Amino acid sequence: MTPSITTFRWVPPFARGHVRDIRARWAFEETGVAYHVDLVESAKTPEHRAFQPFGQVPTYRDDTVELFESGAIVLHIARQAPGLLPADPPGRARAEQWVIAALNSVEPFVTDLVTVDLFQADKPWSSTRRPAVVEALRARLGDLAAALGDKTFLDDAFSAGDLIMACVLRSVPRNEILAAYPTLLAYLDRCTARPAFRKALADQLALYAPADKRAEVTA
Amino acid sequence: MTPSITTFRWVPPFARGHVRDIRARWAFEETGVAYHVDLVESAKTPEHRAFQPFGQVPTYRDDTVELFESGAIVLHIARQAPGLLPADPPGRARAEQWVIAALNSVEPFVTDLVTVDLFQADKPWSSTRRPAVVEALRARLGDLAAALGDKTFLDDAFSAGDLIMACVLRSVPRNEILAAYPTLLAYLDRCTARPAFRKALADQLALYAPADKRAEVTA
Repeated sequence: MTPSITTFRWVPPFARGHVRDIRARWAFEETGVAYHVDLVESAKTPEHRAFQPFGQVPTYRDDTVELFESGAIVLHIARQAPGLLPADPPGRARAEQWVIAALNSVEPFVTDLVTVDLFQADKPWSSTRRPAVVEALRARLGDLAAALGDKTFLDDAFSAGDLIMACVLRSVPRNEILAAYPTLLAYLDRCTARPAFRKALADQLALYAPADKRAEVTA
Repeated sequence: MTPSITTFRWVPPFARGHVRDIRARWAFEETGVAYHVDLVESAKTPEHRAFQPFGQVPTYRDDTVELFESGAIVLHIARQAPGLLPADPPGRARAEQWVIAALNSVEPFVTDLVTVDLFQADKPWSSTRRPAVVEALRARLGDLAAALGDKTFLDDAFSAGDLIMACVLRSVPRNEILAAYPTLLAYLDRCTARPAFRKALADQLALYAPADKRAEVTA
């Protein structure tokens, strides 16, 4: 059985290229594991929630396991074939550490800003709260830049940790915020220049291209 | 070499019992792995940040690896001895999924409320924002309660996923919020009634007991 993931059949334009199945797609491309995509109209249905309690995408399914949480899906794919995890257990533990650091120590600060600027932009508290949100995010990015130093990736070689961290950094406003950390900006660009990411991104965007443009985009 | 973790020599009273080394301590107790604790005055020093980029505790060190991120530390401890991960790879992937679900899909909503009620309680936006924060947290808890259903733990047996989820749920206001989800409340109490948690909690609290009471508490 070819592993499958779910994603949305349709998303609004601002989300295209950023739906979280991009993380699983990227992991499949890095490891060369074939996969297919099942489309859902909504993630809030009881049928979908049976696999994803929080009503989100992606979910993952293969012969052995059904999973949700993009971080766990990426780690599971990474264990099926070389490409995203070192062979030695300490290196694997460090890659896992960076996956969790991205998801628990960086992404919540990015999400705070996206919430202020997008999802709750109309709420009266968003504009007054924004400077504190930006300040907290900048502190995290400064810490992350210090940890990266002049290294190419967070550890010795590109790993699942870099994959998830790059996905998180893609949602940081590039000019206003990320540009102040040139090594992080270069790191993000280095990660997203990888052929596996370009392929994953093109495949997600092709799905959401208008029907009459779809052949052109996927060509 | 006995594995070691770091934690703070002193924390304010409201944090006692909730410093994140509790997660590592609990994992050590569940697996029966001996450990010792190194105390730091501050996590913001360059020396500490060399091991923990975000200036937090705990960090972990053994003969093979140095790690930060409590979720990654718990998973690493869990791989050293039975007690927190099933033997089969699919079961391990699901336990990891619940670790990440707790850290990325539940904890940020809990942290939002703690921020509003504690860390930024004096900010003008906190009181106006609070109802939306409570509503979002309640939605997540409802989803989690549905996923738990009438099961004893999130998967077949107590795992690292339950350990981290219980630590996250401990920070949810019990009477105002958690009591509306009786199965979650019972789940939390079932997790924290485990002898391994009681030992971990007692050990953390003993560290912060006033010097003249310390002998009594640790006796």
